[in-house]
Amino acid sequence: MTAQLMTGTDLARETLERAAERARHLEAETGVRPCLATVLVGEDPASVTYVAMKRNRCARAGVESRHVPLPAATTTEELVAVIRELSEDPTVHGILLQHPVPAHIDERAAFEAIDPAKDVDGVTMASFANMAFGHDGFASCTPGGIMRLLDAYGVDPVGQHAVVVGRSPILGKPMGMLLLARDATVTYCHSRTVDLPAVLATADIVVAAVGRPEFIKGEQLKPGAVVIDAGYNPGNVGDVDFDGAMGRARLVTPVPGGVGPMTIAVLIDQTVDAAARQTALAAASV
Amino acid sequence: MTAQLMTGTDLARETLERAAERARHLEAETGVRPCLATVLVGEDPASVTYVAMKRNRCARAGVESRHVPLPAATTTEELVAVIRELSEDPTVHGILLQHPVPAHIDERAAFEAIDPAKDVDGVTMASFANMAFGHDGFASCTPGGIMRLLDAYGVDPVGQHAVVVGRSPILGKPMGMLLLARDATVTYCHSRTVDLPAVLATADIVVAAVGRPEFIKGEQLKPGAVVIDAGYNPGNVGDVDFDGAMGRARLVTPVPGGVGPMTIAVLIDQTVDAAARQTALAAASV
Repeated sequence: MTAQLMTGTDLARETLERAAERARHLEAETGVRPCLATVLVGEDPASVTYVAMKRNRCARAGVESRHVPLPAATTTEELVAVIRELSEDPTVHGILLQHPVPAHIDERAAFEAIDPAKDVDGVTMASFANMAFGHDGFASCTPGGIMRLLDAYGVDPVGQHAVVVGRSPILGKPMGMLLLARDATVTYCHSRTVDLPAVLATADIVVAAVGRPEFIKGEQLKPGAVVIDAGYNPGNVGDVDFDGAMGRARLVTPVPGGVGPMTIAVLIDQTVDAAARQTALAAASV
Repeated sequence: MTAQLMTGTDLARETLERAAERARHLEAETGVRPCLATVLVGEDPASVTYVAMKRNRCARAGVESRHVPLPAATTTEELVAVIRELSEDPTVHGILLQHPVPAHIDERAAFEAIDPAKDVDGVTMASFANMAFGHDGFASCTPGGIMRLLDAYGVDPVGQHAVVVGRSPILGKPMGMLLLARDATVTYCHSRTVDLPAVLATADIVVAAVGRPEFIKGEQLKPGAVVIDAGYNPGNVGDVDFDGAMGRARLVTPVPGGVGPMTIAVLIDQTVDAAARQTALAAASV
């Protein structure tokens, strides 16, 4: 048996095209061009590359990006002040603080300085609670992109046993909540899980979000499972043993070209949403 | 085999005694007596009883309770306005909106009108996110009480498979997050779960929070499991078949006398905490 590839490239392109169309429409109607502020602390090469990719996609979708590079020695207080200013700036509709920030910074404090109305990356506690309670709001981009991938490939989570491996605040935790809101039976596994193989053996949907190369082996999967690899390790290697998974699962996301493109597409889609909402609100309050 | 009873009455009494001691200390030091506002919409007999119990426990712990009864026809806007006023009232330290409110009211909007600093019942989205991310903050009282029960009986959740049956915003969802923050492997089950018995068979800790009498049967439990019954159905019946559970599990909470007393104790404990924090803040800002 060979699984079907669950690629994100085409869906991401379609998502970006629709976002671009909505951005054009918004600008034509109101003169407002959506604007994403990208905040990068330090010069970590991977982060520099990610931010450049995001800004590049913005440009292609007709979304302005305002880059705010800050020195690696920036303090939490300084970063919070910068983000607060962006939160209050009416010409900025979305704010992305590139993760991870240097270790001396209180990342949570920095995230919480983002106005939830501009939290297009879905990192605030308010956005998390919205996801958990099934309310409107911005999704954390990677989990949000994964939900769109599942929909595009006809995977209905209702009643499925979805196993999320990893519990980070912007990936694993919101992922489980989004799946639960769609009526999956959700299990969170992590580094302290005693018998991961036993849990994986019963998983209809697996989301790997641990950041350890090929951590999940093909033979650990339930035959016919849907396997979402949200890992991205050095050398273009995911968290799942790809060949093993392809021999056993029903649907498998490749790395790269699976989850990654969807993450950026959701970011930009949500930025256009944010701009449209803020523009409508501003018009209503005139 | 007969399980050990995991009663909440003694632990709740001790918790209340410590809260009363702290309340006395606060009043002696600052002249401030902790005050819980209890908001009750309508006259549902069970809710009337619950609120009376809570106010009675307040009185015994030296906590003032300010009762705010509202007619059943109260609108969402009216309720929100009342709660906002209490949120801004410096003589009120904690706010309890008795759940459930009449169906025509947007309960979430009402909950969100509670200042998170006064959310001693742990119902706001901010409190939920704090629980999920392991930050300081008020716990939803029933899940918070259950965590204290587990600690008191020496049940360490690390690496245990904890199965939460039910996913309500103030019980099941925060319960799972608190267990996950304590390093359990957590599974959320609910009405759309396809094979609940298969999940229960692997559960080291079961929290039943569905509101269906004797929904979980003794023979479905893993031998030696820890069984927390957070259900409370008419006729003093829990969500777990008590006799069956006693014959198979290691620890079982009775209904009543298990989780229930802890819920109220945590509410009052958190009210005293809230009063102490707000009084310290007020002193610091003078």
